Amino acid sequence: MEQLLEISYALDTFYFLMSGMLVMWMAAGFTMLESGLVRSKNTVEILTKNIGLYSIACIMYLLVGYNIMYGDSNSSIIPGIGFLVGGDNSVADVLAGGEDAPYYSNIADFFFQVVFVATAMSIISGAVAERMKLWSFFIFAIVLTGFIYPIQGYWSWGGGFLDGLGYSDYAGSGIVHMAGASAALAAVLLLGARKGKYGPDGQINPIPGANMPLATLGTFILWMGWFGFNGGSELKVSDVESANTVAMVFANTNLAAAAGVVAGLITAQLMFGKADLTMGLNGALAGLVAITAGPDSPSMILAVFIGAVGGVIVVFSIVALDKLRIDDPVGAISVHGVVGIWGLLAVLMSNDEATFFGQLAGIVCIFGFVFIASLLLWMILKLTIGIRVSEEMEYQGMDLAECGLEAYPEFSGSRLSSK
Amino acid sequence: MEQLLEISYALDTFYFLMSGMLVMWMAAGFTMLESGLVRSKNTVEILTKNIGLYSIACIMYLLVGYNIMYGDSNSSIIPGIGFLVGGDNSVADVLAGGEDAPYYSNIADFFFQVVFVATAMSIISGAVAERMKLWSFFIFAIVLTGFIYPIQGYWSWGGGFLDGLGYSDYAGSGIVHMAGASAALAAVLLLGARKGKYGPDGQINPIPGANMPLATLGTFILWMGWFGFNGGSELKVSDVESANTVAMVFANTNLAAAAGVVAGLITAQLMFGKADLTMGLNGALAGLVAITAGPDSPSMILAVFIGAVGGVIVVFSIVALDKLRIDDPVGAISVHGVVGIWGLLAVLMSNDEATFFGQLAGIVCIFGFVFIASLLLWMILKLTIGIRVSEEMEYQGMDLAECGLEAYPEFSGSRLSSK
Amino acid sequence: MEQLLEISYALDTFYFLMSGMLVMWMAAGFTMLESGLVRSKNTVEILTKNIGLYSIACIMYLLVGYNIMYGDSNSSIIPGIGFLVGGDNSVADVLAGGEDAPYYSNIADFFFQVVFVATAMSIISGAVAERMKLWSFFIFAIVLTGFIYPIQGYWSWGGGFLDGLGYSDYAGSGIVHMAGASAALAAVLLLGARKGKYGPDGQINPIPGANMPLATLGTFILWMGWFGFNGGSELKVSDVESANTVAMVFANTNLAAAAGVVAGLITAQLMFGKADLTMGLNGALAGLVAITAGPDSPSMILAVFIGAVGGVIVVFSIVALDKLRIDDPVGAISVHGVVGIWGLLAVLMSNDEATFFGQLAGIVCIFGFVFIASLLLWMILKLTIGIRVSEEMEYQGMDLAECGLEAYPEFSGSRLSSK
Repeated sequence: MEQLLEISYALDTFYFLMSGMLVMWMAAGFTMLESGLVRSKNTVEILTKNIGLYSIACIMYLLVGYNIMYGDSNSSIIPGIGFLVGGDNSVADVLAGGEDAPYYSNIADFFFQVVFVATAMSIISGAVAERMKLWSFFIFAIVLTGFIYPIQGYWSWGGGFLDGLGYSDYAGSGIVHMAGASAALAAVLLLGARKGKYGPDGQINPIPGANMPLATLGTFILWMGWFGFNGGSELKVSDVESANTVAMVFANTNLAAAAGVVAGLITAQLMFGKADLTMGLNGALAGLVAITAGPDSPSMILAVFIGAVGGVIVVFSIVALDKLRIDDPVGAISVHGVVGIWGLLAVLMSNDEATFFGQLAGIVCIFGFVFIASLLLWMILKLTIGIRVSEEMEYQGMDLAECGLEAYPEFSGSRLSSK
Repeated sequence: MEQLLEISYALDTFYFLMSGMLVMWMAAGFTMLESGLVRSKNTVEILTKNIGLYSIACIMYLLVGYNIMYGDSNSSIIPGIGFLVGGDNSVADVLAGGEDAPYYSNIADFFFQVVFVATAMSIISGAVAERMKLWSFFIFAIVLTGFIYPIQGYWSWGGGFLDGLGYSDYAGSGIVHMAGASAALAAVLLLGARKGKYGPDGQINPIPGANMPLATLGTFILWMGWFGFNGGSELKVSDVESANTVAMVFANTNLAAAAGVVAGLITAQLMFGKADLTMGLNGALAGLVAITAGPDSPSMILAVFIGAVGGVIVVFSIVALDKLRIDDPVGAISVHGVVGIWGLLAVLMSNDEATFFGQLAGIVCIFGFVFIASLLLWMILKLTIGIRVSEEMEYQGMDLAECGLEAYPEFSGSRLSSK
Repeated sequence: MEQLLEISYALDTFYFLMSGMLVMWMAAGFTMLESGLVRSKNTVEILTKNIGLYSIACIMYLLVGYNIMYGDSNSSIIPGIGFLVGGDNSVADVLAGGEDAPYYSNIADFFFQVVFVATAMSIISGAVAERMKLWSFFIFAIVLTGFIYPIQGYWSWGGGFLDGLGYSDYAGSGIVHMAGASAALAAVLLLGARKGKYGPDGQINPIPGANMPLATLGTFILWMGWFGFNGGSELKVSDVESANTVAMVFANTNLAAAAGVVAGLITAQLMFGKADLTMGLNGALAGLVAITAGPDSPSMILAVFIGAVGGVIVVFSIVALDKLRIDDPVGAISVHGVVGIWGLLAVLMSNDEATFFGQLAGIVCIFGFVFIASLLLWMILKLTIGIRVSEEMEYQGMDLAECGLEAYPEFSGSRLSSK
C-alpha cells in the first residue's frame, strides 16, 4: 500500500513536470510567432523581449508571486504576501494517505505554475511590438508577473472570492489569457499605433510580417505546448477518472484548435477572397484559447463547435480593432482577450456547475483589475522613463538601437529594413 | 489491487497521450520540411496547406474515420460506417480486471490515432507542392482522411482481412507512409511536373528550396515525433515486457534514422561528389520509414542496417523518379513509398510471424486501393474545379494569388520570388 | 507486489525514454543555434555537420562507446573494451526485487546515454564553424564519440577513479560540457581564426550571424531539452524522494537558465550599452551549464545565483577569448568550458559530499585528457587530410563547395553571401 502511494505520487509528479515542460515550450512558440509577424528591423528586439520576459517571470514568481497567489490570507480579496516557495512534502506525509495527503511534489506544482505566468506576460509583447521601449517593457514585466497576475490568480485558483462566486476557468481563458490581453490593451491605448499603420483619411495599411514560416512554427509550438497547459490543469492523472479526463482534455484541445483553423481560413476566404494564412494561425490560437476555460466537460463535437466559433470571432475582432485604430501587430488582444471571453461563456454549454453570473463576475473583475492596474503602471512609466521609442528609432528599426544587432544582416539591406 | 489497476490504466493512458502529442508535433515537422524545400513564392501556400490538412484530418477522423477504421463490421473487406467516437471506459469496467478489461482510455486512443491520419495526409502536400490548387487539395484531404485511409486501415489494424493474412506493419510503414505516398503518386501523375523542371532535351533542372535551416529543423522535428509514432504503437508500457519493448522501439528508431543520415550522405558524396544535405535529411526520414514496420524485433545493429539501406535506396529512388519525370519537390514518394516497401520487407529479417506472402499482400492491396481510389478522386477534381493553378499563377507564385501574403516580403523582391 | 514492481519498472523506463527524447531534441537546438550564428554562406555546411555528428555519435556509441564507458574493467583508469549493448532485463530478474534488481530497462538507459554523447560532440561544431573541413570533422566525431568521451566518462559515471576521488558531476557540467569544450579548444588552436576576424592592429571585427530567430529558437530548444538532460540524470522517479528530487531538478534548471538570461542582458547593457541578444542567449546556456553539475541540491534561490554568475562569466569570457584571438563563432568554449568549470565548483555550495579536491581533480583530469587526446588527433588530421578549407573556399563559403547547396538561394546573392 505504501509503495502504491509512492508510485501514484511519482506518476502525478512526473505528469506535472512533463506538462510544465510543454508550457515552458510555449515561450518559444510566442517568440517565433511574434518574430515572424513583425518587420525584420524589429525582430531582434522582440526576440530579446520574449526570452527576457520569460526569465523575469520565472524569477519574480519565485520571489513573491507564487506566495501571493497560493499563500495564506485572511481576506478573500487581498492576498497575503510572502516570499519564495516552501519545502517539498515529506515521505511520511505522503504515506499518511487519506484525503489531505499530498499526492504530487510541491516543487513540481511551482514549476507548472511558474510557466503559466510567463504565458500571460508573453501575450503582451506581441501587442506592443515595434514601438515599445525594451527596458520599460521589462519593468512592467516585473510588476505584472510578481504582483498583478498573482493577485487576480489568488481570487480564483488561490481560493479567493471569485472561486466562491462560482467562477469556472479550468486552465485560464480568463486568468491567464484575458488577463494578459487586458494589460496589453492598456498598453496599446497609451502607446498609440505604429507610424504609418493608419492613414489620415481612415486608411488601414497592412504591415506584413517578415517571416511567415516562423509565425507558423510558433503556432504549432503553442498548439503542442497547450497539451501541457490544459492537460496539466487537471492536476492529477493517476486514477481512472483523472486519466479519462486528461485524455478528454487532450482530444478537445486538439479539436478546438483544428476547428479554429478551418473556421479562420473559411472566414478569411469568404471575407477577403483569400485563404489568409495569418487568419488560419490566429484561428488555431483562438480555438485553443476558447476551449481553455473548460476542455474537460464538452463532448468532442462540442469542442469543435467552441473552437470554430473562436476562429470566426477572431477574424471579425481583428478587423474591428483595426477600424478602431487599436494597433495590435499580432492580433493578441483579439485572440486572447475577445476569444478568452467567448471561452469563459462557452463553459456554460457543458459545465452545469458554472453560472452565468459567476462567469460574468470573473470577466468583469479580472479585466477591470488587470486593465486599471496596468494602465496606472504604464502611465507612471510613460511619465518617467517613457514607453515609446523615438520616431527616428521607430523608422530605423529598434534592433540596432536597442540591441546592437540585426536579425538578418545579410538579407535585408538598410534600405529594405527601414522601409 | 484495484488501485494497482487504476495506476496501471493511468500510466498507459498518459503514455498514449505523450505519444500522441509527439505525433501531433510531426505536423510541424512536415510543415517546416516542406516550407524549406519549396521556393519562397510558394511558401505561404504550403504552410496553409499543412496546417489546414492537419485540421481537416482531425475533424474528419472524429466525424467518420475512427468509426470506419475501428468500428464493427460484418465483412473483413468492407468496414461498417458510424459516426463520432463512443464514451470512455467506466471505472467498473477497468476494475473488473482480466484479459478483456480496458487498460487505457478510449479517448486517448482516439487522440493517438487521429494524429496518425494527419501524418498520412502530410506526405501528399510535399509531392504536389508549387502547383496544386489549395482548395482542391483540401477537398481531397476531406475524403482521404475521412474515408480512404480509414478503409485500408480497417483491413489491418481494424481487424480486417489483411490482419488475417499475416500482414505485419507495427506502426505503419505501409498503412500510413506507403498509403500517403500512393495517393501522392496518383496526384503527381495527373498534375504533371512544375514548369521548368524538365527541359525539352531531357535536362533535369534543380529547383532549390528557399530555406535549408527550416528543412533541417523539420527533419529533426519528425525524428523527435517519430518516438511517439513508433513508441506509442506498442499500445502499452505498464509491465516489464511492454516497457522493454517500448525502449527497444525508441533505440531502434533513433539508430535507423542515424544510419539513414550516414548512408544518405555517403551515397551522395560518392555519386555527386558533394555531401548533399537534402540527401542526409531524406536519409534520416528514409531510416525512420524503413524501421517503422517493425521497430520492436530487430537487434540494434540490424536496425542500423535497415536504416542504412533505406538511406541508400532513397537517393537512388529520387534520382530515378527524376529520370522518369515524376516531379516530387520534396522526395516524398521516394521516402515514404519506395522506402516504405523496403521497410515492410525488412520485417521478414527479424519477425518470425511475418510472411513474405502477407507482406506482399499488404503492399499490393494498400497501394492498389489507395492509388486507384485517389486517382479517381483526383480525376473528378481535375474535371470539375481543376487541380492545377494557371501557368501565370505558377510563374508569379501561389502565395499572393491564393493566400494574399508573401512569406518573406522584405527579403525576396518580386523579381526574385517569381524567378 | 509483483505487479507493483512491474509498474514501477515501467514508470522509470518511460521516464528515461521521455528524458532521452528531450536530450535528442537538443541536437536540433545546437543545429538551430549554430546555423543562426554563422553567415549564410556557411549555413548548409553547419547543418550537415550537426545532423551528421549526431548520427555518427549514435552509431559509434552503440558499436563500442557504451561498452567502454559502462562495461567491465580491471582498472579504474583504463576501461575494458567491448562491443554493442547487452540484452534487456528478464521479467524474473525484475520481480526478484531487492536492492540489486534492475528497476528500468537497460535499453532505455542506452538510449538516454547515447543522446548525451551527441551533446558533447555538438559543442565542438560551433567553435570550429566557418572554416573546418566537413569530412575531417566527421572523422574526429567518430573517435571522440566512440573512444575519447567514453574513456573519461568511465572514470566517473562508469565507476572509475574519479568516482573514487569524490568528483561530483550530476548531469555532466564537466563530463559532457567541459569535455566538449576541451576538444573544441584544441581544434580552434590548431585551426586558427576565420579570415578577417582579427585585424593586424589588434582589431576585433564582429562577424554577425545570419539569422537571429534561428539562434533564439535553438536556445529555447536547448532549454527545453535540458529538462531531460538534467531531469533524467536522477535515473529514477518512481518513489517520493526521487520524484521530489526530479521536480527540484526541473525547477532549478529552469531558474538557473532564467537567471543567466537576465544576468547576461544586464551585463551586456552595462558593458556595451546595448541589450545584446546573443549575450542573453549565451546567458541562458551558461545558466544551464552552470547548474548541470548539481541541480538537485541547491535551493531555488541558490540556483538563481548559480545561473546568474554563469551569465556574467560568459560575457567576460567571450570578450576575453576574443582578446586572446581564440575565434569561437558561437561562444561554445566560454559557455560549455569556462562556465562548466564554474558549475563544477558551484556544487561545493550545496552538496556536502563534494570536495574541492575532488572537483579540481575532475576538472584537471577531464580537461587534460580530452584536450591532449583531441589535440593529437586534430594534429594527425591536419598533417594528413587537412582540417582547414582553402582560403578561396572560405571566402566563397563552404556550402557550395562541400555540400553543393545554398542555404537561402533566393535571399543572398553571391555578392552578399561571399562578403
